[in-house]
Amino acid sequence: MPVEIITSLQNPRLKRLVRLRDRRPRDEERKFLVEGFREVRRALEKKVTLDEVYFSRDWFLGSNEPALLAEAEASGASLFELSKEAFAKVAYRERPDGILAVAPQWQRTLADLRLPAVPFILVVEAIEKPGNLGTILRSADAAGCDAVIVCDPVTDLFNPNVVRASTGVLFSVPCVVEGGEAVLAWLKDRGIRSVATTPGAKALYSDSDLRGPLAIIMGSEQYGLSEFWLKNSDLPVRIPMAGQADSLNVAMAALITLFEAVRQRGAPGATR
Amino acid sequence: MPVEIITSLQNPRLKRLVRLRDRRPRDEERKFLVEGFREVRRALEKKVTLDEVYFSRDWFLGSNEPALLAEAEASGASLFELSKEAFAKVAYRERPDGILAVAPQWQRTLADLRLPAVPFILVVEAIEKPGNLGTILRSADAAGCDAVIVCDPVTDLFNPNVVRASTGVLFSVPCVVEGGEAVLAWLKDRGIRSVATTPGAKALYSDSDLRGPLAIIMGSEQYGLSEFWLKNSDLPVRIPMAGQADSLNVAMAALITLFEAVRQRGAPGATR
Repeated sequence: MPVEIITSLQNPRLKRLVRLRDRRPRDEERKFLVEGFREVRRALEKKVTLDEVYFSRDWFLGSNEPALLAEAEASGASLFELSKEAFAKVAYRERPDGILAVAPQWQRTLADLRLPAVPFILVVEAIEKPGNLGTILRSADAAGCDAVIVCDPVTDLFNPNVVRASTGVLFSVPCVVEGGEAVLAWLKDRGIRSVATTPGAKALYSDSDLRGPLAIIMGSEQYGLSEFWLKNSDLPVRIPMAGQADSLNVAMAALITLFEAVRQRGAPGATR
Repeated sequence: MPVEIITSLQNPRLKRLVRLRDRRPRDEERKFLVEGFREVRRALEKKVTLDEVYFSRDWFLGSNEPALLAEAEASGASLFELSKEAFAKVAYRERPDGILAVAPQWQRTLADLRLPAVPFILVVEAIEKPGNLGTILRSADAAGCDAVIVCDPVTDLFNPNVVRASTGVLFSVPCVVEGGEAVLAWLKDRGIRSVATTPGAKALYSDSDLRGPLAIIMGSEQYGLSEFWLKNSDLPVRIPMAGQADSLNVAMAALITLFEAVRQRGAPGATR
């Protein structure tokens, strides 16, 4: 545990933490922020390397924080204690809980994915809102997807709000960032069928066979599926909608489609 | 259209608009706030009475606002123009679009609901987060629910963030607020089966019959279903989960269950 407490709002470490909220400095450094007790705990559980952990006792919500910090330190992270005001400056959450870590970004490629005999994959295209991407990761985790492939990302995976909205799932579900053409070629090579949800499809998602090696493809919030995936996916399907046309957003549509696949595939989670 | 522009931040009308963000003044006045072009348009489409519409040209995002304001005025609303700074004070959104209305709260009771022969209802208990309640309303709308019944609400329906997260669905899906016992008696009277989702259930939601007169019951974020509904619902069901225990929140669980019911019931939205 450190003995010196960072109190100066001009401290260069604080300035760096604020900079890491933005994509360019984040990508240049190849680091990212992990804020929150739960998220840092999950990173440690998944053996994600943490370079540094910043904390402020004045913001702690419970009594388990010292044990978490000790665990982070034992895993190799450097600890830095902050005053209440200093932590308020670096926290990006509305309600900080006094824990903020910096971790190295990782780069996983399609070749790194280890897939079971009958893979179940989610592919999302150009998602714009970090909250949606985070929710989509949670959905993929709950559905037991083997991987999430993010095509042509608008929001990067390491955006602080993706980390937050994913409730730490970012550390457990294998995520790969790759261009659409490479993903399509990779799916075809492996005999993985691509099923794309789009409102214009004829087939209902629930009337379609979602068993076997499967990739569910979801488009972006604003533009839906790109021409590329509309043309190249094996089967377009749609979700029936009552009510307002925009009641289902992309994260909701992904969740519905994933769980229909789970149902058809025999609910692997049911036996865990 | 008004000729005078409200510029003083001390104007009592502005102070009232800020007060209406809080539940007590909202309930005392029996009014609520509807912020945003889309939400006000949907309120007008659904013939929801608007008392007043406040606007500021400096925040307009498009060119359709004057037509919307004219429509609001024609429907009986009083218009008030605000300076950019004055609107910034009363807007509760991060990115205001220059439109904010005040509408009377309505009070719908179970007796007011007009149900089809085979009703499809969602009951939610003590939801805490306005964002979740709004998302749940969207899900119910997309699934074609005949009504949403909010039991023992922690968040009131007229919270500005419910209005916002519901993307205006609050104005179209019939919503009733009522205590659990009254709701149970009402369901039993009408022969409506209650199916409650809870992680401890034996039956999988997708193996359970969700056809016929149906009410899906969802518990609160933090505490899940109350003892009352655990004891009194006709059938407890669970959603299979891979991954982290908390990957599915209540809004996601509601969406999954609703769309499984839609699938079993023959996708009414499919034919619209």
